[in-house]
Amino acid sequence: MITVGIIGYGYWGPNIVRNFSKLPGVKVGAICDFNPIAIEYAQKEYPHLPIVSDYNEIVSSKEIDVVAIITPVSTHYELAKKALQNGKHVFVEKPMAPTSDQVEKLIEIAEKKKLLIMVDHTFLFTSAVRKIKDLIDEDVLGNLYYFDSTRVNLGPFRHDTNVIWDLASHDLSIMDYVIKEKPIAITASGRSLFGNGLEDVGYMTVYFSNNMIAHFNVNWLSPIKVRTTLVGGERKMLVWNDLDTDEKLKIHDKHLIFENREGIDNLLSSYRSGDMWVPKLEQCEALRIETEYLIDCITTGKTPVNDGCSALRVIKILEASNESLRNKGQMVLL
Amino acid sequence: MITVGIIGYGYWGPNIVRNFSKLPGVKVGAICDFNPIAIEYAQKEYPHLPIVSDYNEIVSSKEIDVVAIITPVSTHYELAKKALQNGKHVFVEKPMAPTSDQVEKLIEIAEKKKLLIMVDHTFLFTSAVRKIKDLIDEDVLGNLYYFDSTRVNLGPFRHDTNVIWDLASHDLSIMDYVIKEKPIAITASGRSLFGNGLEDVGYMTVYFSNNMIAHFNVNWLSPIKVRTTLVGGERKMLVWNDLDTDEKLKIHDKHLIFENREGIDNLLSSYRSGDMWVPKLEQCEALRIETEYLIDCITTGKTPVNDGCSALRVIKILEASNESLRNKGQMVLL
Amino acid sequence: MITVGIIGYGYWGPNIVRNFSKLPGVKVGAICDFNPIAIEYAQKEYPHLPIVSDYNEIVSSKEIDVVAIITPVSTHYELAKKALQNGKHVFVEKPMAPTSDQVEKLIEIAEKKKLLIMVDHTFLFTSAVRKIKDLIDEDVLGNLYYFDSTRVNLGPFRHDTNVIWDLASHDLSIMDYVIKEKPIAITASGRSLFGNGLEDVGYMTVYFSNNMIAHFNVNWLSPIKVRTTLVGGERKMLVWNDLDTDEKLKIHDKHLIFENREGIDNLLSSYRSGDMWVPKLEQCEALRIETEYLIDCITTGKTPVNDGCSALRVIKILEASNESLRNKGQMVLL
Amino acid sequence: MITVGIIGYGYWGPNIVRNFSKLPGVKVGAICDFNPIAIEYAQKEYPHLPIVSDYNEIVSSKEIDVVAIITPVSTHYELAKKALQNGKHVFVEKPMAPTSDQVEKLIEIAEKKKLLIMVDHTFLFTSAVRKIKDLIDEDVLGNLYYFDSTRVNLGPFRHDTNVIWDLASHDLSIMDYVIKEKPIAITASGRSLFGNGLEDVGYMTVYFSNNMIAHFNVNWLSPIKVRTTLVGGERKMLVWNDLDTDEKLKIHDKHLIFENREGIDNLLSSYRSGDMWVPKLEQCEALRIETEYLIDCITTGKTPVNDGCSALRVIKILEASNESLRNKGQMVLL
Repeated sequence: MITVGIIGYGYWGPNIVRNFSKLPGVKVGAICDFNPIAIEYAQKEYPHLPIVSDYNEIVSSKEIDVVAIITPVSTHYELAKKALQNGKHVFVEKPMAPTSDQVEKLIEIAEKKKLLIMVDHTFLFTSAVRKIKDLIDEDVLGNLYYFDSTRVNLGPFRHDTNVIWDLASHDLSIMDYVIKEKPIAITASGRSLFGNGLEDVGYMTVYFSNNMIAHFNVNWLSPIKVRTTLVGGERKMLVWNDLDTDEKLKIHDKHLIFENREGIDNLLSSYRSGDMWVPKLEQCEALRIETEYLIDCITTGKTPVNDGCSALRVIKILEASNESLRNKGQMVLL
Repeated sequence: MITVGIIGYGYWGPNIVRNFSKLPGVKVGAICDFNPIAIEYAQKEYPHLPIVSDYNEIVSSKEIDVVAIITPVSTHYELAKKALQNGKHVFVEKPMAPTSDQVEKLIEIAEKKKLLIMVDHTFLFTSAVRKIKDLIDEDVLGNLYYFDSTRVNLGPFRHDTNVIWDLASHDLSIMDYVIKEKPIAITASGRSLFGNGLEDVGYMTVYFSNNMIAHFNVNWLSPIKVRTTLVGGERKMLVWNDLDTDEKLKIHDKHLIFENREGIDNLLSSYRSGDMWVPKLEQCEALRIETEYLIDCITTGKTPVNDGCSALRVIKILEASNESLRNKGQMVLL
Repeated sequence: MITVGIIGYGYWGPNIVRNFSKLPGVKVGAICDFNPIAIEYAQKEYPHLPIVSDYNEIVSSKEIDVVAIITPVSTHYELAKKALQNGKHVFVEKPMAPTSDQVEKLIEIAEKKKLLIMVDHTFLFTSAVRKIKDLIDEDVLGNLYYFDSTRVNLGPFRHDTNVIWDLASHDLSIMDYVIKEKPIAITASGRSLFGNGLEDVGYMTVYFSNNMIAHFNVNWLSPIKVRTTLVGGERKMLVWNDLDTDEKLKIHDKHLIFENREGIDNLLSSYRSGDMWVPKLEQCEALRIETEYLIDCITTGKTPVNDGCSALRVIKILEASNESLRNKGQMVLL
Repeated sequence: MITVGIIGYGYWGPNIVRNFSKLPGVKVGAICDFNPIAIEYAQKEYPHLPIVSDYNEIVSSKEIDVVAIITPVSTHYELAKKALQNGKHVFVEKPMAPTSDQVEKLIEIAEKKKLLIMVDHTFLFTSAVRKIKDLIDEDVLGNLYYFDSTRVNLGPFRHDTNVIWDLASHDLSIMDYVIKEKPIAITASGRSLFGNGLEDVGYMTVYFSNNMIAHFNVNWLSPIKVRTTLVGGERKMLVWNDLDTDEKLKIHDKHLIFENREGIDNLLSSYRSGDMWVPKLEQCEALRIETEYLIDCITTGKTPVNDGCSALRVIKILEASNESLRNKGQMVLL
């Protein structure tokens, strides 16, 4: 039996508690929040569980094996560090910490203590993203040309981070997961309603050494909700529309046909445009799969795909976007 | 009776000839192309018209009042200059010329000769774009936050220009038309399959002095065709999907609500999300409206919205995109 | 404080219990089911509530004011009768009873006992249906031409009733609610995989005295889910697509224009086709509104729109559909 | 060289002339219309062709091999009869004649004279319908459960026929083409704004001996245009949305799974829901394919799929729909 303690019972915390409480072989040991309203809500949902207001009761509890940290970003580092130092495995809401330095320190502590540290990149555990990963791994798409993502909606505005950190972080974690090549540089642009550096509209281009390109369009001020990613490959191309219930993932048998007859002017003069295919995706809650996977990694000692290094790669890109935004869109090497 | 001579009967030329030939008070005087296949095709469609292979027969014809130039970009400047020097009004396919210097010279000659010079920015004459212009002019949207355009498809690849010049030029001409403020700087990114500077995937951010931002996503390698523009304003927001037959333009009664009660942290804490409205748009061929407008401007002496200066503003942004692409996405001031 | 007892904790029962348990001024007194799995599930969700297996403990409980019956149709009549005879108000899953005779008897008992009897026509309490009712009541659509509904999906197959009773019953209750005129006759057609009278594909036409027509297309064997209703009026027409998250209800400013100049041949020679409008709909759970409304009707003595008479009108049409199906589609007068 | 004479140059005639005039080995001999405006229009488009106002010049011309009749329905029979009697092959706009008796007479004359008679069922020559035919012929769908078609729009109203003859005739010709089994009975319902028997909203159910069912929903008063057909089979199911440019035909790997373990109550307890597949369809003008096919049938002596017998089968169902409408929806045997 693995016992999990959850710190933070705000917007996302209840989903974490619900999922852990339903896993076989797992017990929720305690829930912590300092907000009286959150405490009352937790008590009502889980009358038999200890609900505490001091996080030390979680991180130093002898009964607890895993600490799940679902609190504001600014608190992640301290809480995760204490949990690790007390010998707990750690599951942290994304981003793992506000800076890459802090993430590196957490990785270091975890390695020394032989503990697992996992970042909650929930999207990696959706059926759609796992199918995309399979398609790329099995070389169905061929060499990739681009990865182009749009994630926009009307709010919710945040006042502790900009729209790139808030929204593009999801797409960066997905890109990091499905694409083997690692990015080498980025440029970013955006605007902020108050010019205070908290961009509400943001764009980022990511360059790869193999000539692939990725682009991210994020916006808190869109009249419509869009969550669409295009991936173009030399053999096939796909469109992932996460808002489509029945046809989330479309794989198009479309590609360029190279014809070398008479030099560059006649290159690319034709296209193959064949059938389109919508694979059946299992309908299951991504968080359920992710929490099961956490327990499985702890039990078997396996390194998770969403480990500290994965968190670090994403945060380094996010930090680079800050630098590019400060320097008028200048390219920042990774 | 105004007589028009058309140079170039390739992909777009037949549409120009067809529209001029149907206008009341207008006569097509002659068609020119040096390609025998184009000549044969023109002869078949217009057996009563002179079809010539030497453009001088058009630019120096005494009967012809207006020369329409629908040829490859590299020939625009020479043809337009000769036509103007011979006292003809000129209608040129976009872009007006390969460089802003050349466009400036054409403007200069036209002014000196008191002739009209018009660039074919067809989209300005669609019902959708004219409705967007009205909505912005009448301040229905309020101050604008952003203009965000996506124009992607599988080809057609071009070998004389990159995807930004090919596709974003349409959206830049639309932005130039509907938005009064003028851009101050841009950044661009992209990738080219052969690394030869002819980008097939391109992104551009355009900055305005009033904190507005514009963004353009263009791609010749997309498995799906997208032609969507979002415009966000402080009062209302709109979505223009040019591929939707019946609901091209959607105006959303959505906006931020500013609440200044307790400082920045509580700003933007709510949104208004009201009705959505799809105005009825007239169905008419944009090129028909544009050619009528050309004749009207010639007759009345009115300065067209798509005059040489409009062409120049678009080309200066396109030139800046080249510079930014060469300099790793660096910001280029306009 | 009004106390509600719920009989039946299968597919729909938990939603009923959850909603009643959250209403202010309402207490769930007990839950009844004879299935051990349902009992265990209820005990887990509501550890503090009495969970009983004998419905007599509900219908004869002195503490209980309202009995909600969420059991298979064949049991509705007996349970509702006993509850009424014991002086309880009754809320019954649709259809209220298998036959119109039984519904009439329940109405009679309720009237004699001065008790309220309500059928669970949940759709009447959705924002979309209430908006349609308002639009028709305020004569926005003008005289109605037709009401045309499609409700199809892949399953779930039922073995106790046909697809018209299962699915069209929803649309009939909606039609009954939003349209003042009452139908005068119906015809029905359908097919059954096993020819056993349990149609899996069904169609029904409903005639009105004022020349309006209604039609219902229901199907358990459709590869796609469709829930669309068109209502055509002499002034405006609407489309309700219940599967569209953001644009559920579209009101089209379209109608015929009658021109009487030269007799019938020139009638109807034109159409007005104007703007389209998507009203903002509140997002709230229909069942929440319905259960509140039940309590409100009990408290104030108001007759609910979904009373026994409403249930009766729907069941009479369903019975007529059976008769028409048995008689090769022959028209059945209501 | 085969010479075609066209009678009727109204709405559809110009398309027929254009297509015949582009076919290799085919010559348009003359065009006939008695309307001066149509004559003028034909002269302008085809200045080198004889444009006549007396149809006898077509049906009795020694040069003409094939007469295409694109005139109002009421004239089809007389014109076709005269053309056949004069030894011409005949191509007739649908429906071939107002009554099945007349169609039978035309078939008889054509057989006696060994001439070809073809009805213009254009939809049979679209890529989508030909793909559906292939899928059914190759037994991809398995035994068919139903064929369900919706064809609605705002107008155009017709004053010489009802909406079932106008619109459902297309779908009946498609059903006749793709489904081998022949229908045995029908029921119809509808309403007419003026009660004059010219229904503007119509529904028809078609029964087959093998328990398959077909249904047709046609409407001239719909605020939206819909052209969708669902075909459900025991192995796969398809959705044909003719208004979708890129995804017209969707083949769903969905079906019932029969489980015979414990009698009827446990039958149909599950469904297979697998991938979805959108086959690439060729983009070509159906009328081009149809006119080529006409010439090919004449040249090779092959019996066309859209011959007189095909026209007759459709008209018999349309006549049955009239009878059912007159008799309150009563079933009419075919």
